[in-house]
Amino acid sequence: MESFMAEYSGIQVPPATRIGDSLRQVGTPSLMLDLNAFEFNIEQTAKLARSHDVALRPHAKAHKCSAIAAAQIAAGAVGICCQKPSEAYPFVRQGIRDIHISNEFVGADKVAMAIELARHVRLSVCVDHIAQIDALGMAATQAGVAITVLPEVDIGQGRCGVSTSDELVTLTDRLARYGGLRFGGVQAYHGGIQHVATWEERHAAAGRSAELAARHVQFLEARGIACPVVTGGGTGTVEFDVRSGVFTELQPGSYIFMDAAYGSNEWAGSFVPRHSLFIATTIMSTAKKGMAVCDVGLKGVAVDSGLPIVRPDSGADDLTYTAANDEHGILNIAGDDRCDRLGDRVLLIPGHCDPTANLYRQYIGFRGETVEAVWEIDASGLSR
Amino acid sequence: MESFMAEYSGIQVPPATRIGDSLRQVGTPSLMLDLNAFEFNIEQTAKLARSHDVALRPHAKAHKCSAIAAAQIAAGAVGICCQKPSEAYPFVRQGIRDIHISNEFVGADKVAMAIELARHVRLSVCVDHIAQIDALGMAATQAGVAITVLPEVDIGQGRCGVSTSDELVTLTDRLARYGGLRFGGVQAYHGGIQHVATWEERHAAAGRSAELAARHVQFLEARGIACPVVTGGGTGTVEFDVRSGVFTELQPGSYIFMDAAYGSNEWAGSFVPRHSLFIATTIMSTAKKGMAVCDVGLKGVAVDSGLPIVRPDSGADDLTYTAANDEHGILNIAGDDRCDRLGDRVLLIPGHCDPTANLYRQYIGFRGETVEAVWEIDASGLSR
Repeated sequence: MESFMAEYSGIQVPPATRIGDSLRQVGTPSLMLDLNAFEFNIEQTAKLARSHDVALRPHAKAHKCSAIAAAQIAAGAVGICCQKPSEAYPFVRQGIRDIHISNEFVGADKVAMAIELARHVRLSVCVDHIAQIDALGMAATQAGVAITVLPEVDIGQGRCGVSTSDELVTLTDRLARYGGLRFGGVQAYHGGIQHVATWEERHAAAGRSAELAARHVQFLEARGIACPVVTGGGTGTVEFDVRSGVFTELQPGSYIFMDAAYGSNEWAGSFVPRHSLFIATTIMSTAKKGMAVCDVGLKGVAVDSGLPIVRPDSGADDLTYTAANDEHGILNIAGDDRCDRLGDRVLLIPGHCDPTANLYRQYIGFRGETVEAVWEIDASGLSR
Repeated sequence: MESFMAEYSGIQVPPATRIGDSLRQVGTPSLMLDLNAFEFNIEQTAKLARSHDVALRPHAKAHKCSAIAAAQIAAGAVGICCQKPSEAYPFVRQGIRDIHISNEFVGADKVAMAIELARHVRLSVCVDHIAQIDALGMAATQAGVAITVLPEVDIGQGRCGVSTSDELVTLTDRLARYGGLRFGGVQAYHGGIQHVATWEERHAAAGRSAELAARHVQFLEARGIACPVVTGGGTGTVEFDVRSGVFTELQPGSYIFMDAAYGSNEWAGSFVPRHSLFIATTIMSTAKKGMAVCDVGLKGVAVDSGLPIVRPDSGADDLTYTAANDEHGILNIAGDDRCDRLGDRVLLIPGHCDPTANLYRQYIGFRGETVEAVWEIDASGLSR
């Protein structure tokens, strides 16, 4: 290979946008945040929690952005959830002081991260096995830090978490061995029911899960173990969980964005999040009749929960996103091609917000037709 | 929110590994590269191209890593392909001097990037519309840079590229208007045939596509337009394309990694890439009988082309990855749970390497049981 030459070392990808730009000037693909809808979602959910005297601890795995977490805290959230120890770091740097790792973790590197986090913030974590408790307990006690532990109980998902109250007590008993650990309550989350399509069925499913959580709490209380926190709930069930009388704290994440998968839920109550997250894309080939090719493919949108949809009422209602290649998106054109669409810009609603946000490095916040904010996705890629 | 405190500003996620670590010490999820298999793949493909006097221009969209591109160039590659203008920047910084953007692009920001790239490297790009030529031609001529243009011809994929030789000539005629542009040949790629499962059917499909490319070349030559470069081909067809007599240059990308989707192809010839790319994962919950939950989900592996598979013959043959949640992977255990697997480490082969590599920030190269290299994925997330 030719030798490295200093003259090249400074070449940098230009920014996709600048504050004050019009939307049409934003380089694509870009992840766009409609600030009016976003602020509505933040405020609506904060108000819902506040009015029922339930704590709101939004899940940062959805956005991975410390600026958004700061906005959630400013609106009254008690702290945030992260899903992995490494994910928490940017939020600590941002100054957030109360972080719950709502997931189990195993490994010396992750225990070491938890110890470091606990030196800086009020940290709580989940466990469902005594080996997780032993590893963390020995390290925390030795390091002289305090970590709150919320054993996870399975309320129907069939993934992590203990299934019986006897198993739960085995965990709380084990916790008591370690001076560095403190029992804080239980984690009780059922991801599978968040996307039950009809509102009534989702309501009923949320009730069944809350009842399972309640039984564990009652079992502990009957043994004299107070359970100050019952944390769980997601965007699909938060309107029910908040009224359950069981959950003391709610963990919704996607409510700030409302992706297409959540958008396909029926929302029959007063709690209705608005679509705020979009992907700006440009049509870069129109060589085939009846079809347009845009610049957002698998590296620009997660397709695990369905393909993205074109923003309704945006003047592109004849376009349907029908296939994602690595860097190409295929848009079918309904009816006759009215004109050559080359260079047209389209806003897509991603099927699933969490893995889509993780593909990007910044949110471009806009109001109306103008770029108003650029927020770094500082936990992007932090999955350890 | 509580005010930012300087003491937190230095908190950084610790590295997942250090050179010389054993594999068991690597933090998970991590993207692992078996250097023996990787080097075999690099050398096998370089030799294949060399022995047929065909240029090799590997596709960097597969790995997005300038250290890997440097290894490919060192083995004889003439340059690299990128799929987006922004993707090329880290490779320019690395000192690579010959880059082909094997894709169309539209937009003032992307034209500006192409102009900047052309100041530093021999740049070629694809077009399939006169508007792309006009935008680039005006900018290149005004900037006083030279850009080589390879119009794309559709050889069966039905995505981008012109379908008829008349359309192709419209593009070559248009190119001639601009002093800054130079016709360099044609781009002819069919992604859809790369994964035709049987070797014979893939062979036949490659032949049909090469024949379509040849007709365009003959048409141009009959009009006195020399076509010095015919570039295309992928990992699935490179062994056929190299012998086609049509392609002067080949663009395989995935051959260095051999993902599970390519692994499911039949490989009946002498060209057989080896699996070199793995995801290291840890089992972090075993609360459910017959099931283990690992720490690689949708943010750690792309599932568009199928779920990851457990590395065969690695002592974990009773595990099957059956579902991906955001941060959880579900592993079913065949037969009876022999023992508690909590903390066990598993190597997964991703279904699709390109979007999986784009989720990470580094490759951890290993030989045997020891970490030997850490390479930054410096084009991760560059999709504009």
